Amino acid sequence: MLRGKIEIHNRVSIESSNEAKENDTLDLIYTPGVAFVAKQISLDKKLAYDYTSKWNNVAIVCDGTRVLGLGDIGPEGAIPVMEGKSVLFKVLGDINAFPLCIDTQDKEEIIKFVKAIQPVFGAVNIEDIESPKVLEIVERLQKDLSIPVFHDDQHGTAIIALAALLNSLRLVHKSIDSTRVVIAGAGSAGYGIFRILREAGCRNIIVTDSMGAIFENRINGINSRYKKEIADKTNPMKLSGSLADVLKGADVFIGVSGKARLIDKEMVQSMNSSPIVFALSNPDPEILPSDALEAGASIVATGRSDFANQVNNAVVFPAILRSLLDLRVKTISEEMLVSVASAIAGIVDTNHLKYDYIIPKVDDPRIIGIVTNTLKNAIQIHLDKKMQQ
Amino acid sequence: MLRGKIEIHNRVSIESSNEAKENDTLDLIYTPGVAFVAKQISLDKKLAYDYTSKWNNVAIVCDGTRVLGLGDIGPEGAIPVMEGKSVLFKVLGDINAFPLCIDTQDKEEIIKFVKAIQPVFGAVNIEDIESPKVLEIVERLQKDLSIPVFHDDQHGTAIIALAALLNSLRLVHKSIDSTRVVIAGAGSAGYGIFRILREAGCRNIIVTDSMGAIFENRINGINSRYKKEIADKTNPMKLSGSLADVLKGADVFIGVSGKARLIDKEMVQSMNSSPIVFALSNPDPEILPSDALEAGASIVATGRSDFANQVNNAVVFPAILRSLLDLRVKTISEEMLVSVASAIAGIVDTNHLKYDYIIPKVDDPRIIGIVTNTLKNAIQIHLDKKMQQ
Repeated sequence: MLRGKIEIHNRVSIESSNEAKENDTLDLIYTPGVAFVAKQISLDKKLAYDYTSKWNNVAIVCDGTRVLGLGDIGPEGAIPVMEGKSVLFKVLGDINAFPLCIDTQDKEEIIKFVKAIQPVFGAVNIEDIESPKVLEIVERLQKDLSIPVFHDDQHGTAIIALAALLNSLRLVHKSIDSTRVVIAGAGSAGYGIFRILREAGCRNIIVTDSMGAIFENRINGINSRYKKEIADKTNPMKLSGSLADVLKGADVFIGVSGKARLIDKEMVQSMNSSPIVFALSNPDPEILPSDALEAGASIVATGRSDFANQVNNAVVFPAILRSLLDLRVKTISEEMLVSVASAIAGIVDTNHLKYDYIIPKVDDPRIIGIVTNTLKNAIQIHLDKKMQQ
Repeated sequence: MLRGKIEIHNRVSIESSNEAKENDTLDLIYTPGVAFVAKQISLDKKLAYDYTSKWNNVAIVCDGTRVLGLGDIGPEGAIPVMEGKSVLFKVLGDINAFPLCIDTQDKEEIIKFVKAIQPVFGAVNIEDIESPKVLEIVERLQKDLSIPVFHDDQHGTAIIALAALLNSLRLVHKSIDSTRVVIAGAGSAGYGIFRILREAGCRNIIVTDSMGAIFENRINGINSRYKKEIADKTNPMKLSGSLADVLKGADVFIGVSGKARLIDKEMVQSMNSSPIVFALSNPDPEILPSDALEAGASIVATGRSDFANQVNNAVVFPAILRSLLDLRVKTISEEMLVSVASAIAGIVDTNHLKYDYIIPKVDDPRIIGIVTNTLKNAIQIHLDKKMQQ
């Protein structure tokens, strides 16, 4: 039995074989030597980046309310998922990510909690907290915290979905500005994907929730300003109806609904020519890849590593957090997210791009460097613009 | 420059060389494989001990208000100290201790914070929070939490001080029940030491604070029920006066005042024959060992590793927490603390006991086993007593 996937190691060794040496080390890492460093930091907090692990520490904060597609399974149930995430942070980004699965589901308490842990972390990754609560939490924390706040379910999913979509459209020779995309699910992922697609030039997006298509002035179930934003900025034809209704003639289906088998073969058959099907819910996708392909889908992707075309945040979040830590920037704009998505899509060159290879594998060694450079440039452009204003 | 003393490692390896294998591992540690384990734990929270790192995770919680003898240096300043502590936890107890230096100093907020992190930790170590606030925090957390709460400044210091005292008394042929002990400092450490000495049979304890000796019905500066408890249960002669006054004729001085050079040679000379001087404040002791020895002290100890007789919690806390995690017990009584202190004192056998070797070194490999066995027995006795009631 594997009793946990992570552990904490010391970066300094205390030599037990040599008593004199050992005491020397103890003097330095603990009392009395540590007092000097402690005092220096207290005079200039920023020194914590130089003298402690802060520069490389990420908090994974989760309240257990929306874990994978399993829903509200509580903070204890979330631990193995967050430990898995921590392993990916380590292996792919060389980051110390500690899984803080917390025993409160109250919005204000969660915000207070994250504010409290700021001193010892270089960045925060918000994870698997239910929507729309989490969208407000992230928005407020990004405003109030001195360190970057990444929301993988929203930002990570959006980046990788757009990257996969850009390459899929290359394969089927369609252009994003004339593509009709249906997103099933108006939670964190759906919200994030709608925002990035819009920023990337997509003009015909329809988002559906459990009550069907969201459209301007829909009366029922518009229960947050985030859904209101979706209603106002998508669905230009104001189509109403079920997911099956609006999927007819669509070019792209992106499922982030958390619902297994949400669509069937018939619905895929009702789509436009060369349909693209991203069934991203984990662990059970909206449609099995075999079914989607049988129904005529040109390109199929899921969030799972045991099918082809894994559209999984793991391609993105270690590199993004690595970059945020290294560049020590606090905010990333929608524009920057699009740049990163384009850069990740570009890793798969034309010679290698295939229907079952639309995005790089999670451990592609080129990702970190490319994401870091892209973010660096995007931040420079952002700063230049600000200077000119 | 050492950028931090700890880092997080994965306990599972993801083989990049073999693509098939890698995906197998990813399936298991992340999605979809992790979903099964997550669901199992959500049905029975205790399984978190088997399937996650909870069994071996300790949270070091500190608000930065009373760091070493440096006082309120803020949570950032506390990080290097807590990282040093984390290294000691690892090296001496093989424990994953994460330093949570938090940005709130409010009592209720701190209590809420610690309650929130319960799911992912097997125990909590409260550290360097100012007194008396911290005493109430610890008391309430011990009542409300499902995992053990250790307060090293209080419990750890008490155990090691008693262990050192027991062996010192053996050397100078005095008995604890007829020994007069003066404790300088009525914070966490002073409170913990008074409690353990009393439990161990010491009948003549005087505690001093910045206003001098504490005694029953003293009017000034009795600002918490913990100090009230000290006033009620110590100083049987109701002596008033300064530290210098009450130190006259005392057998033992224990300094946990946080004040450098609090006592001078003259004060040591005023003590009873064969005076024992524990100047435990860090990093600057109440008197330098050389001065105390010159003034005639028989035995001198400090909290520092660069002098002989380091009376330092590091001898105790890794072993205690290791035992609490392994035995999965929630509470330790005053009686158990005394048992552990006696056991630690017993590690130094009569042949080796010397004026400059009164307690085992922090990395003595015998400590863990002896503390665990002692606690195991003490818990059994505790449970047996409960059964008989």
